[in-house]
Amino acid sequence: MIGDDERTARAALCGIAEPGDAFLNRLIDHVGAVAALDTIRTGRIPAGLTVTEGEARLLEQWRIRQRAGTPEEDLAVSREMGIRLVCPGDPEWPTTLDDLQAARPYALWLRGPADLRHHCLRSVAVVGSRAASGYGLRVAAEMAAELAERGWTVVSGGALGIDAAAHRGALAADGMTVAAFANGVDVPYPAGNDGLFAEMARRALLVSESPPGTPPHRLRFLVRNRVIAALSRGTVVVEAERRSGALNTAAWTRRLGRSLMVVPGRVDSRTSAGCLRLLREDPEATLVTCSAEVIELVGRIGADLAPRPSSPVLPRDRLDPVTRSVLEAFPARGAAGAAQLAAKAGLDVPTVNGKLGLLSAGGFIERSPGGWRLTRAARSRDY
Amino acid sequence: MIGDDERTARAALCGIAEPGDAFLNRLIDHVGAVAALDTIRTGRIPAGLTVTEGEARLLEQWRIRQRAGTPEEDLAVSREMGIRLVCPGDPEWPTTLDDLQAARPYALWLRGPADLRHHCLRSVAVVGSRAASGYGLRVAAEMAAELAERGWTVVSGGALGIDAAAHRGALAADGMTVAAFANGVDVPYPAGNDGLFAEMARRALLVSESPPGTPPHRLRFLVRNRVIAALSRGTVVVEAERRSGALNTAAWTRRLGRSLMVVPGRVDSRTSAGCLRLLREDPEATLVTCSAEVIELVGRIGADLAPRPSSPVLPRDRLDPVTRSVLEAFPARGAAGAAQLAAKAGLDVPTVNGKLGLLSAGGFIERSPGGWRLTRAARSRDY
Repeated sequence: MIGDDERTARAALCGIAEPGDAFLNRLIDHVGAVAALDTIRTGRIPAGLTVTEGEARLLEQWRIRQRAGTPEEDLAVSREMGIRLVCPGDPEWPTTLDDLQAARPYALWLRGPADLRHHCLRSVAVVGSRAASGYGLRVAAEMAAELAERGWTVVSGGALGIDAAAHRGALAADGMTVAAFANGVDVPYPAGNDGLFAEMARRALLVSESPPGTPPHRLRFLVRNRVIAALSRGTVVVEAERRSGALNTAAWTRRLGRSLMVVPGRVDSRTSAGCLRLLREDPEATLVTCSAEVIELVGRIGADLAPRPSSPVLPRDRLDPVTRSVLEAFPARGAAGAAQLAAKAGLDVPTVNGKLGLLSAGGFIERSPGGWRLTRAARSRDY
Repeated sequence: MIGDDERTARAALCGIAEPGDAFLNRLIDHVGAVAALDTIRTGRIPAGLTVTEGEARLLEQWRIRQRAGTPEEDLAVSREMGIRLVCPGDPEWPTTLDDLQAARPYALWLRGPADLRHHCLRSVAVVGSRAASGYGLRVAAEMAAELAERGWTVVSGGALGIDAAAHRGALAADGMTVAAFANGVDVPYPAGNDGLFAEMARRALLVSESPPGTPPHRLRFLVRNRVIAALSRGTVVVEAERRSGALNTAAWTRRLGRSLMVVPGRVDSRTSAGCLRLLREDPEATLVTCSAEVIELVGRIGADLAPRPSSPVLPRDRLDPVTRSVLEAFPARGAAGAAQLAAKAGLDVPTVNGKLGLLSAGGFIERSPGGWRLTRAARSRDY
């Protein structure tokens, strides 16, 4: 867990700058979030940081906005509403977001009982147009339900149409689903989905880079898409018109080296025109017709989580050090119990028990008569 | 034109062996069609030809069938019915069929006024399932009509469903279309298409490797598909179930180095399942959504007509020597008349006039105020 100062500073920064601002991320990299907020407050540039004219103007804008911010109060009110702020360094922070590099979020506001990091270890984005056809809605709901049944978290954007069908499909299968909002997680937008969002707040997860109370803003829908792509091992575009926002999520997916999957449709269907264009023009887009084909792609973990083919980041490397030491305590073959693992890893049994669920969700281990054992995939070199 | 003996021998061979038999083609390569028929008649193996046990049995079968053959009569009756036999070496023989090598046809029986070779210089196969959906029928008819309008000949198999829709689409646009039959060109099979075939015999072209009167046979539908693929610069599969015969045409298309194009459909449509599988599993299959995308692919002539990427056969090389010398008589820029071309090529004016239509259909030349001139494509190196 990170300190209160850092959390409060990041809460403030979420309300000050546009999400994923490259200059603010550079400032945070340089001096940390607390000092970055000080820089904004005082206007004093830290030593060694070069600031362009445009960035200086940005700092001035942020200084004005900072004055109106009440991050401590925001955090307190959020807590009362059951909303938590998750920051880099927190156990619940999904390290896959760091693949966004200069565009990474400062923090995420979360509403709902699920553990974001845990569930994003095996997650797929299912996205598409608001103006979807009956065909698209059906495919999105079925695919999401089947993915959820097989233990995959369905990530989407909470919009009308394909997004809502995907969230609902996952819920219908008693599975996990995450909606990444462009507005505050307490703002029921679009209104047509408020029942869905209430259900997700009870059983799943709503996330946003913007503080509670933030109204929807057109521009933020596009920057929000990078969070959907980064939280997932791959993105399925179910239906998209030629200028659909889902194509922006597809572009982020490709940029992040994740699997880009596209559901085809009829050549005379307006709502599939963007999908067919992707399939024609993007050599990395893969045509998928069912959930099994999606899992086949995102299940190839080593390759798909790598942001660049030249420097593969294996999922093992994405585990926090404690979870990793539990994993490394497993025998190559056969089962082990929590006590045995705790002794070998030098941890206490409750800690080990706490990590076994995470390792299981990540596909590293599975239950076996003698306790737990490594999965076949985890025994392979690439996992 | 080839001699009467050769034509009669090839007419006989069409009735004796299965189409595209590798052994018979080897025999023809070795001694010619007339002597090949003698070999069958006498059972005397020509010097230097090795014959396996299976081939010897085949020769014996052929000898029995040969006794029942009446090729002279077949040719005479055909002529009365307006059916002609086109053989390798005839001006109307499409040399693209030679890409089939050991599986090439011995000859083709033709019914209809169009010149096969001329029209196959710019041709695309449009094929698909018998059990087509309304969507598939509509796409096939529209695509064929648009291809025909732009001067492309639509080749297909004369079957119910997609094939018939493609032929009808081309006719509706007053364009050219060729049906390759598995039965005799005078046998109206399937009966549901007899009106279509009568119209095509009046305005277009029906072709078959089997002599007139040959009834349809299940096995011949598959071997017929290679003729569809070989007559065309590329094949568009509009709709295909998982086990559709259209997938066999697709396989021949790929094997011949032609462009394989596939129309997508819904993932829940049985009649598109084979198409989507092709798009997923065949890296050379290209998704197409309209006729313009088809033309974009087959219009890249040099690359697409090449049977193998390592030894490109340019369309210029496919012209007979006389036509080629007319083409070479053209000035690099500006127009020329028939008399001027005849003088330069050392040919008489009627011969030159006879070849200008062929060169125009092939996209090499176009009309211009001063007579004819090279097209932009023909001026480029690759054409």
